[in-house]
Amino acid sequence: MTSPSGDTGLLAPGWAGSAAAAATGDHAYLRALLDAEAALTRAQAALGLAPAAAATAVTEAAGGAFDAVSLAGRARTGGNPVIPLVTDLTKAVGETYGRYVHRGATSQDIVDTATMLVASRTLGLVLADLGRTERALARLAAEHRDTAMPGRTLTQHAVPTTFGLKAAGWRSLMLDARDRVKAVRESLPAQLGGAAGTLAAFGAYGASDPAGLPEAYAWELGLRAPDLPWHTLRTPIGDLAACLAFTAGALGKVAVDVLTLSRTEIAEVVEGSGGGSSAMPHKSNPVRSTLIASAARRAPQLAATLYGAMAAEDERPAGAWHAEWEPLRDLLRLVGGAARDAAELAEGLRVRPGIMREHLDLTNGFIVSERLSAELAPVLGRTRARELLTRLAAEGRPLAEAPELADADLDPTHYTGSAGALTDRALERR
Amino acid sequence: MTSPSGDTGLLAPGWAGSAAAAATGDHAYLRALLDAEAALTRAQAALGLAPAAAATAVTEAAGGAFDAVSLAGRARTGGNPVIPLVTDLTKAVGETYGRYVHRGATSQDIVDTATMLVASRTLGLVLADLGRTERALARLAAEHRDTAMPGRTLTQHAVPTTFGLKAAGWRSLMLDARDRVKAVRESLPAQLGGAAGTLAAFGAYGASDPAGLPEAYAWELGLRAPDLPWHTLRTPIGDLAACLAFTAGALGKVAVDVLTLSRTEIAEVVEGSGGGSSAMPHKSNPVRSTLIASAARRAPQLAATLYGAMAAEDERPAGAWHAEWEPLRDLLRLVGGAARDAAELAEGLRVRPGIMREHLDLTNGFIVSERLSAELAPVLGRTRARELLTRLAAEGRPLAEAPELADADLDPTHYTGSAGALTDRALERR
Amino acid sequence: MTSPSGDTGLLAPGWAGSAAAAATGDHAYLRALLDAEAALTRAQAALGLAPAAAATAVTEAAGGAFDAVSLAGRARTGGNPVIPLVTDLTKAVGETYGRYVHRGATSQDIVDTATMLVASRTLGLVLADLGRTERALARLAAEHRDTAMPGRTLTQHAVPTTFGLKAAGWRSLMLDARDRVKAVRESLPAQLGGAAGTLAAFGAYGASDPAGLPEAYAWELGLRAPDLPWHTLRTPIGDLAACLAFTAGALGKVAVDVLTLSRTEIAEVVEGSGGGSSAMPHKSNPVRSTLIASAARRAPQLAATLYGAMAAEDERPAGAWHAEWEPLRDLLRLVGGAARDAAELAEGLRVRPGIMREHLDLTNGFIVSERLSAELAPVLGRTRARELLTRLAAEGRPLAEAPELADADLDPTHYTGSAGALTDRALERR
Amino acid sequence: MTSPSGDTGLLAPGWAGSAAAAATGDHAYLRALLDAEAALTRAQAALGLAPAAAATAVTEAAGGAFDAVSLAGRARTGGNPVIPLVTDLTKAVGETYGRYVHRGATSQDIVDTATMLVASRTLGLVLADLGRTERALARLAAEHRDTAMPGRTLTQHAVPTTFGLKAAGWRSLMLDARDRVKAVRESLPAQLGGAAGTLAAFGAYGASDPAGLPEAYAWELGLRAPDLPWHTLRTPIGDLAACLAFTAGALGKVAVDVLTLSRTEIAEVVEGSGGGSSAMPHKSNPVRSTLIASAARRAPQLAATLYGAMAAEDERPAGAWHAEWEPLRDLLRLVGGAARDAAELAEGLRVRPGIMREHLDLTNGFIVSERLSAELAPVLGRTRARELLTRLAAEGRPLAEAPELADADLDPTHYTGSAGALTDRALERR
Repeated sequence: MTSPSGDTGLLAPGWAGSAAAAATGDHAYLRALLDAEAALTRAQAALGLAPAAAATAVTEAAGGAFDAVSLAGRARTGGNPVIPLVTDLTKAVGETYGRYVHRGATSQDIVDTATMLVASRTLGLVLADLGRTERALARLAAEHRDTAMPGRTLTQHAVPTTFGLKAAGWRSLMLDARDRVKAVRESLPAQLGGAAGTLAAFGAYGASDPAGLPEAYAWELGLRAPDLPWHTLRTPIGDLAACLAFTAGALGKVAVDVLTLSRTEIAEVVEGSGGGSSAMPHKSNPVRSTLIASAARRAPQLAATLYGAMAAEDERPAGAWHAEWEPLRDLLRLVGGAARDAAELAEGLRVRPGIMREHLDLTNGFIVSERLSAELAPVLGRTRARELLTRLAAEGRPLAEAPELADADLDPTHYTGSAGALTDRALERR
Repeated sequence: MTSPSGDTGLLAPGWAGSAAAAATGDHAYLRALLDAEAALTRAQAALGLAPAAAATAVTEAAGGAFDAVSLAGRARTGGNPVIPLVTDLTKAVGETYGRYVHRGATSQDIVDTATMLVASRTLGLVLADLGRTERALARLAAEHRDTAMPGRTLTQHAVPTTFGLKAAGWRSLMLDARDRVKAVRESLPAQLGGAAGTLAAFGAYGASDPAGLPEAYAWELGLRAPDLPWHTLRTPIGDLAACLAFTAGALGKVAVDVLTLSRTEIAEVVEGSGGGSSAMPHKSNPVRSTLIASAARRAPQLAATLYGAMAAEDERPAGAWHAEWEPLRDLLRLVGGAARDAAELAEGLRVRPGIMREHLDLTNGFIVSERLSAELAPVLGRTRARELLTRLAAEGRPLAEAPELADADLDPTHYTGSAGALTDRALERR
Repeated sequence: MTSPSGDTGLLAPGWAGSAAAAATGDHAYLRALLDAEAALTRAQAALGLAPAAAATAVTEAAGGAFDAVSLAGRARTGGNPVIPLVTDLTKAVGETYGRYVHRGATSQDIVDTATMLVASRTLGLVLADLGRTERALARLAAEHRDTAMPGRTLTQHAVPTTFGLKAAGWRSLMLDARDRVKAVRESLPAQLGGAAGTLAAFGAYGASDPAGLPEAYAWELGLRAPDLPWHTLRTPIGDLAACLAFTAGALGKVAVDVLTLSRTEIAEVVEGSGGGSSAMPHKSNPVRSTLIASAARRAPQLAATLYGAMAAEDERPAGAWHAEWEPLRDLLRLVGGAARDAAELAEGLRVRPGIMREHLDLTNGFIVSERLSAELAPVLGRTRARELLTRLAAEGRPLAEAPELADADLDPTHYTGSAGALTDRALERR
Repeated sequence: MTSPSGDTGLLAPGWAGSAAAAATGDHAYLRALLDAEAALTRAQAALGLAPAAAATAVTEAAGGAFDAVSLAGRARTGGNPVIPLVTDLTKAVGETYGRYVHRGATSQDIVDTATMLVASRTLGLVLADLGRTERALARLAAEHRDTAMPGRTLTQHAVPTTFGLKAAGWRSLMLDARDRVKAVRESLPAQLGGAAGTLAAFGAYGASDPAGLPEAYAWELGLRAPDLPWHTLRTPIGDLAACLAFTAGALGKVAVDVLTLSRTEIAEVVEGSGGGSSAMPHKSNPVRSTLIASAARRAPQLAATLYGAMAAEDERPAGAWHAEWEPLRDLLRLVGGAARDAAELAEGLRVRPGIMREHLDLTNGFIVSERLSAELAPVLGRTRARELLTRLAAEGRPLAEAPELADADLDPTHYTGSAGALTDRALERR
């Protein structure tokens, strides 16, 4: 039964039901904690510090069912869930091999390692969705390489651009995010240090070279072997904060653009499947963008909490470490959910070149005024050219009717500059 | 059965199992959403806009069981959980009165109102625990009014103070937090505006004075009637952010002091029931303080997200509103859990006056050097007095052995200034 | 001469040149530090602890010129600017009364008090500009009480609203901000505790009742007398964070609305004096809103740093206090600058009712679909009514051409609900 | 003359007077803006788009003096300082070549490029100070490879560790920071896109291949050539936020450890030159650590603001960009100042092995209880071993007096596990 205080995603349409949600829920964390415990015994067995049968027994027991609600309740006394979990797992392993459970480790070894496992798995999902998004945006950029639209600065039409260049820019952010997530994912280390990071207990339990144990442990888990125990050297946490906040920001850029371009008055793009309203049948809300934008508003502050936790005192800290757990999980699933939504958004986005073309005329031709400034200056002089254009702007008439500009090329689609070339170059990046 | 992505507090020893956890979980939110829907129909019935039987039918149906996991999944399409909830509730109410469910309202009316209900209930719990904490601290302050201890500044012993003054200061923060939480709790408004905050649909459904409806609705819920629909006038959210971040900071101050005073080398206070370690039987970790300190590290950034959401565009925003939901809930339960831990901490704190007294001698008497500076200056002149003390400090010998100070009162317990008077005065505050 | 590392506002168009900038610059802080020192000696004289002539001498010397660049450089050794300032001020006072400078105080007494003086003065400016903004918005709300415009939710036209209601809502936020700023401003206390908050040194220098000194000191400065020394009881800092972040959010709401409504495609409002571009003479950028929006993006995180600093250990902390100085100053001048910009924005805003009216027709009449849903339901039944409207929406034709709706009132200006009544009620608030 | 609102570092002992302060002040930004303008004309000349003499004239004029205060004041109208700077620079260049100033560029091209120049220069300073710090810590780690001290977890003594391992861990964070700062520094791109990022104006001014211009421009400045104009693709800003927040966190870890170990009761390390107090001659405050800790408290929230600014709408945004300027500058100089302080801290730190050794006995021998647990378990059985130790802990007597442990090795310096081996390995990293 659901715990009375259990969460199921009711307040989280941005990530509820996503693969990232499943990969980061309490169930997944519990599984990862058990994976870490089992790997620890197997690593000790591999180095001859425990019988092979103990490794088998712990691994098998760790595959069983444990009660997350009960563990959460009992976590309070000692301040972390590993203490009661070790009790339950030891019991499940039974008399003979129970003493090999968690032997020589500290709770933080297990929590940190489990967190790296969860992070690695979730970042794998993020990478897949960034890939889908990137590919869909590459298609849009190629298709709309020459689709002219208004370039907007400080909310106002400035000069023409193309939708191809915009989509290529979005894609370049996806690739930047991918590169950062990938590099961090490959760097995630297992954690093993014992009570204060000296690996001393492993020696007390018989290891002749305890410093070799972390490597065997990491190998069991598919994580990187740490250079040093990192209980209070929080490089992996800082790096996760960085790549997740970056990805949220990159996705957020796409979302705010789609929100703007979807406005009733602009309507240059439409989300493939907008959210509806029963009482207002005409509405089609850009829900995917809304949820991504919402994630982008939250991620920076979650990352800030993680960066703040780097200043962790002593060999293991009183508070800084505990302050990482929920924010890191929140970041992982927020970004995981937003990446999913971005993939759906990019794959379903409908682009309306005709409306874009119409909007190029909204400023009565002035969207090419920069070009006219440049071309008239050598003829009229810089000052007189500017005076002419300023006067015409004040008059509010279409530029096409101005006799002084009879010979000028006023076609905004002819003034997209290097948009095409930049798009081509950007699409070469893989 | 627990949803595979469901959370039960495994990563949250700071609030798992607390009353605040129960008051803020998905179950509690779902209950509050249903309370809001039922109150809406009752308010319409009270004003003659719906039959009394409809009010009864909706209220009864709203008392039933709804599937939070399913709602969470279906919330994604429209971006909020009220859309599927209205479907389910309408069905539960049945053919005859189903059409009175949610009539004239927008999803945000229900979500915001439910959030205010959840906030009000949780702040009630916070107030109770602040009260327990405050009373326990008052007892400590009175008991230790004259217990001298080192005053520490920039980590170094400065001049003596008393534990009474320290506890009285902690208590004053509890009272400050209480005042702020109480004021905000009493100001929380119901939300009712309809699609874009004009209450227009209620008129379309027959209300002659729709502007009276919010008052009736608020009355049903025990919330304040709003001056205006506040879909994008987020004063209540900003106020909640303020009082919760403040309370977290106030509790955090107590926690960092206890953490410092609990250090093995200091040991002037001990948490009543420290967290243990199976492998290190001597350890008694200050777990309550650790968890409170952890909450105090997270709350400011959650509040920042809420403040950022105040800049919400249009009549209802695309992202800013959605970004409030989880951070506000997180703040409520973090602070709720921390207030619980603080009450236990304050009620169980063991104070060690003997050790405090010993520590007053750690600086060889120099903890009263400020007094000596003041008293020697008129005698020797300011410069020579300082030279004398600086020389003695450099020599590293106990001040009591210095012949120049034979007549001076070097007793640190005689140099606690107005600590007693300040404590008395602070304790008069109720 | 300007210091090579001096700042003059080059990166801060949002506050450079404002009264708030002058009230918060290093010069103003230096002046406030000197005010605090002078008041301290005067308060001691008032209680008979120093000769009246000493008070006069210190006050006069404090009115002189001190070298902020030199002080900043020398502040590094001890970690705060008061240590070198006391040296310089003592020298300026001269042999006879120099020893009365800073007597019995700690650096934090002076820095905190000066900060309260700077805050009080700056909040006064903020209140004045909030008042100007509020009055301008009241005029706009009254004038446009019945100016219908599209209500927008999740970026899409929903139902009609009025510009009067929007302006009245903005104004209510200004009043909320005013109330919060005013209350905090009136609560700002002087700081006086001596080395560790016990006021002991004042006793050593002869005060029979040192606990009375803070009151005399506060009186000299026009600040509130503190209940307790608050070196690590940071209520005033938390309260300042709250009212400033709130105000930034309130101003930010106005700014994001103006930015949206100013877009080239929407153009329902125009800033009175937009920023231009030499090369693009048609552009008129909403610069005031841009700068306010920029401040609203920064304020929440600055407030978070201040809230985080509340968890300050011991009697005076090593880092938490120092982390307050620049963020609080930044908040004060960001909000001060934004309030100035908001006043100019509100006073100069040009509203275009004609364009608003045109936009009500952009959805082919569907902006009143909610009304039609409500009115057709009793006639056709809820399901058939919805089917009809959904079909018509899919067909994309103007609703006015639908024969089924021949008798319906499709005029969007008739469907503004209680917007007028709500505006009237909101404007009654003073 | 100093502007009345000018800042000189009075509130910033953490960075005032540092090389980073000089590299990030308004003067340095103004210089970088001028460098960017000059490089733009030179790049155009290099491609034949402007006469060589124009490049010379603009470069010479840009080397002159400009009035930062006046520019700051005039920046307000358009919202950035480049607009008035172009006016002043054009005038300084004179009639003949003035029209080549800023030709084809937008203000953001110049501000972003200048920001990259400032960042690159400041990060160079940071790298130098991280290098100094790292080398000093390597010396400390090597010297104290076998200096045993208490390992502390959750504020309590846990098991022994060594100061060598602690210093090696600090050093590894410095190297991690160095690697991240170095990589970001080498990636910083010039910005060139023109009004909306299409480079169109350069074509209008005659460039046959405007897409080649950014490369020439970047070459002039020693920056990387951008793949795309990045006006709203803020990868460089996100990357700067990441490496700076990371470095602040890494430095903050060292600082909080030194603050703890410096406490009067602990005193295992002492800052080389502590800050003093005139009235309390015994005090030696850990000022360097205090200021570094203060920076570490602020950096995460500044980084959050920068991450939040990545969600920048359109081709150039209204607010998100402006919100980057001051926070990025603040981050650069905070981290620059903290790196300077860390170098001084590490080079001057005094370590007290004798006191560390004494503290190993503070727990009556129980600091090796983990070892005893491990060694007694095979002899007595796990349960009886634990019962024995728990009983002895409760009795509070020194373990050495327990007859049951007569043969046990209770020497804490023999229980430092792999601390030495880990230190050696960590020091191999370069």
